[in-house]
Amino acid sequence: MKQIDELRGLMSARGIFAYIVPTDDFHGSEYVGAHFKLREYLSGFTGSAGTLVVTLDEAALWTDGRYFIQAERELSGSGIALMKAGEPQTPTIERFLLDKMPENSSLGFDGRTVTTAFAMRLCKVLNPKNITLKADEDLGGTVWKNRPPLSKKPVFELSESVCGMSRREKLTNIREKMKAENADCLAVSALDEIAWALNLRGGDVDCNPVFLSFMLVFEDRAELFAERSIFSDEIVWNLKNDGVEIRPYEEVYTALKSQNGAVWADLKAVNYRMKCSLENARIISKQSPVVMMKAVKNSVETAAEKSAHIKDGIAVTRFMYWLKHAVGREKITEISAAEKLDEFRKMGGGYLGQSFEPIMAYGEHGAIVHYSATEETNSVLEPRGLLLSDTGGHYSDGTTDITRTFVLGEVTEEEKRAFSLVLAAHLDLLGAVFPKGVRGSVLDGIARQSLWRHGLDFNHGTGHGVGFLLNVHEGPQRISWRAVNDAPLAEGMITSDEPGLYFEGKFGIRHESLVLCKKARDGFLCFEPLTCVPFDPEGIDKKYLTDAQTTGFNEYQKWVRETLSPLLPKDEAEWLAEITKPI
Amino acid sequence: MKQIDELRGLMSARGIFAYIVPTDDFHGSEYVGAHFKLREYLSGFTGSAGTLVVTLDEAALWTDGRYFIQAERELSGSGIALMKAGEPQTPTIERFLLDKMPENSSLGFDGRTVTTAFAMRLCKVLNPKNITLKADEDLGGTVWKNRPPLSKKPVFELSESVCGMSRREKLTNIREKMKAENADCLAVSALDEIAWALNLRGGDVDCNPVFLSFMLVFEDRAELFAERSIFSDEIVWNLKNDGVEIRPYEEVYTALKSQNGAVWADLKAVNYRMKCSLENARIISKQSPVVMMKAVKNSVETAAEKSAHIKDGIAVTRFMYWLKHAVGREKITEISAAEKLDEFRKMGGGYLGQSFEPIMAYGEHGAIVHYSATEETNSVLEPRGLLLSDTGGHYSDGTTDITRTFVLGEVTEEEKRAFSLVLAAHLDLLGAVFPKGVRGSVLDGIARQSLWRHGLDFNHGTGHGVGFLLNVHEGPQRISWRAVNDAPLAEGMITSDEPGLYFEGKFGIRHESLVLCKKARDGFLCFEPLTCVPFDPEGIDKKYLTDAQTTGFNEYQKWVRETLSPLLPKDEAEWLAEITKPI
Repeated sequence: MKQIDELRGLMSARGIFAYIVPTDDFHGSEYVGAHFKLREYLSGFTGSAGTLVVTLDEAALWTDGRYFIQAERELSGSGIALMKAGEPQTPTIERFLLDKMPENSSLGFDGRTVTTAFAMRLCKVLNPKNITLKADEDLGGTVWKNRPPLSKKPVFELSESVCGMSRREKLTNIREKMKAENADCLAVSALDEIAWALNLRGGDVDCNPVFLSFMLVFEDRAELFAERSIFSDEIVWNLKNDGVEIRPYEEVYTALKSQNGAVWADLKAVNYRMKCSLENARIISKQSPVVMMKAVKNSVETAAEKSAHIKDGIAVTRFMYWLKHAVGREKITEISAAEKLDEFRKMGGGYLGQSFEPIMAYGEHGAIVHYSATEETNSVLEPRGLLLSDTGGHYSDGTTDITRTFVLGEVTEEEKRAFSLVLAAHLDLLGAVFPKGVRGSVLDGIARQSLWRHGLDFNHGTGHGVGFLLNVHEGPQRISWRAVNDAPLAEGMITSDEPGLYFEGKFGIRHESLVLCKKARDGFLCFEPLTCVPFDPEGIDKKYLTDAQTTGFNEYQKWVRETLSPLLPKDEAEWLAEITKPI
Repeated sequence: MKQIDELRGLMSARGIFAYIVPTDDFHGSEYVGAHFKLREYLSGFTGSAGTLVVTLDEAALWTDGRYFIQAERELSGSGIALMKAGEPQTPTIERFLLDKMPENSSLGFDGRTVTTAFAMRLCKVLNPKNITLKADEDLGGTVWKNRPPLSKKPVFELSESVCGMSRREKLTNIREKMKAENADCLAVSALDEIAWALNLRGGDVDCNPVFLSFMLVFEDRAELFAERSIFSDEIVWNLKNDGVEIRPYEEVYTALKSQNGAVWADLKAVNYRMKCSLENARIISKQSPVVMMKAVKNSVETAAEKSAHIKDGIAVTRFMYWLKHAVGREKITEISAAEKLDEFRKMGGGYLGQSFEPIMAYGEHGAIVHYSATEETNSVLEPRGLLLSDTGGHYSDGTTDITRTFVLGEVTEEEKRAFSLVLAAHLDLLGAVFPKGVRGSVLDGIARQSLWRHGLDFNHGTGHGVGFLLNVHEGPQRISWRAVNDAPLAEGMITSDEPGLYFEGKFGIRHESLVLCKKARDGFLCFEPLTCVPFDPEGIDKKYLTDAQTTGFNEYQKWVRETLSPLLPKDEAEWLAEITKPI
């Protein structure tokens, strides 16, 4: 390939034997903007995850199981070998490099696109061969002639009445944490942390309302490294008023070089060039204090989220009503159904857009966990089987993420069994009560027991944290039995509850609500549902539910009915009353 | 105190400012023999856990919540301050030393009695004051004139027909693991690991059938450092035949000094003098391979354990029959009840003795988790309330550990509720099904959910590993939601299932069986009960059990009835049939 050859030319000229191109932006974001899709440009592989390694005589691309088929097709004829990550015979990137690289040779990458932790691991593994890391140049970018510029979408400000705490107060809280660690400076590179701390939102990453920036917080001021033009004069003024000065985006590295005190920078999070720039500082590597502050929602954020979820509940419930009545009568496809649901969301107030790429998966597509319909795969919905709908929205008062599995007509015994058992798992987590300090991994045992007893399981987490009008995936908590050292649940955290079951070539089930962690009684926590959309009772076979699960189900449906009925048109309200009758 | 003054004299003479006396033997054993009770001799405090720190002008003893009252009493007038470990205002030992020790001073302890990990932590914390560690001398021992000698109880050999694998095969398996780590030598200091690997058992630690020893395994031979006189000539011959040479106990340190290859020694486990002796070696610090081998029982060990548990089941069931009939008719105390149970155990074949100090706790004593009746506290059992009986035995074919809570007469609603909810927790864990790879911390969520939902909890683990005719507490698995990085459960592991509830000043409930982890179906594991003793149905209020729990309960009681009935005298068998009827 021409691009790869050009890259090799640059590598040769600089004495670089191997060059790594990951999928990341400079902030470790889950999704990246067009400017950062260099790996896609160089390799032709369009999946959302993958790392390209180019040596002077070979090229290989690592990606995970979701993308093996797609990558095989897209890489075909490119001369780039597909490395199936996670398969036993596949070497890790580190191992591959250790095998291929000559002693005393050099490894290149753009130090801004890898975490420090990854670079340090490379360093350690390649140490026996005395490999030099050259991380200062974006060689791939040099090759890319018509590269899209960095996104410069306008930033907007959240009022304290929506987010419950002023920027000034947030900065004060951050400074208290810094003081406790004797840190002179906190370096923040995660975009959602900066957005949260400054009560600002942007549009530089699809579906994530964040803006490209770095932030350094000092005892008496803060520096925000970002494109000046994305801020209105009013916002600049307000920031200045709170002691936050805007500096050019790329100047962060120069600014870090001048630090000679103690700098708090989580080496698991900050990019390698940031770490290299801290050449004169003493680094305190610890999770940024903003992670927990952002995860634990205050009462204003919580109230706003509840309001957003009612709007979202109306939209999804109306979609469900429409779907159940229209299927078989008019032509609906996966893509048109997703568009229809988005239309219902747009009818509500304050809708800002989707919080992630919708998954509208009919029949066997439901078994593909990260399915995204394309023109080629787009199925027509028939009045039978199951539609798995996993979608979400950003509203001016919060972020939603909901999966319901809808019965479109006749369903098999096997489908009903799976539908009911996943519902049992969902309800067991929703109804869990647990002491303070319990981690999500422990709760996952409670959630999955209904499935495990039947020898069933699913291969993704049961829950992830969700930001307040921010990223739909955030930490530090998660609900996954495989997690080690996961953060304990805490009052005010919002988490998804989304067990599933997937039968390849047949169908998939997932039931997902967002839940708020709250106090149950002294020393104990529990969950309160935020998502307010009925489950489709047509999928249930009661014999798979315990009495407690049935009671929990009826309570949830009743709450949905009582909450939404007054807000729905008459026909829809009547239908809702019908489908939420106790089972 | 005279002893403390004498110790200070020795410290002064050697330029030692502070001296630490922990409770450990040289092997990190849970219980220690009389020779190692130096902390008790020096301080007068007789509890099973505690660390004494003596400086030239102060003395303090750290112990945990179980012993605060006892320690207060025993230390009174000694001039030794009680340090309540775990209380927020109490400094850690490291912190205390950092505060008290002058710069450039020396800290002494017997390096054989602390783990390397503890010594390294001291080193790190005290580094700012440039403290020297002097760990070569047992100064406390010098003070102790009539110190009991090291125990020298005879060793006995287990035949392959009982333990399922020859010593030679075990050593071969160990050597394979060593090869995979490129280790020239494996240093084993845990007594149960050595006993297991060599198919030998001893009597040097109360209730633990182990013998004082260290072992070094090499590619072609092994060295066992132990008192020659505890082995019969036949055992010495058999060991020699399998390439195991006996050398004097204390020579292990000299032997370690001569190692200059790669030595596998877990620094979390081996004592500090061992680590210091490895001055010429490259240390591979990793959990000893014997830990997992020992934890995963083979089919012969499993069959033997089942046989031991039936013998134990007969004894405890007969005790229950006797107790329920005799209470109120004859004088029974906590101590006499424990003796009676031991008598029933002695009637069975192959009984070797108690596997731990029995807990026979009547009424409010049941709320004291580690209660051990003394002549002063010894209660008379009345025909009312609850008796918590936590006891166990070693048999020639296995080790048992069982808790039943017996109803002696009238019980309150509160007692029944607690009894039933703890039973629900016990049954939920017993009936759990889970994929391979799941850790005990995840299972604890399943176990405790019945309690947590009622705002109830208990402050100890729900399960611990149990050795095969070995220590009643072993790792690496445990069932505790607080555990981080605990080992996944594996087929062949034996674990206790022992939830409880404790109401101070009122009563305590615990229901404990040992359970064997086995395959449920492809990829899934479950538990099979080993303990075969009925639960007392008089404690149950069915309304606290779900249908599934009731079914599980009835199945367990039926299994006990069918297993034990043919082996019991007629009256007892009839009574058993009656009390194990379905509820």
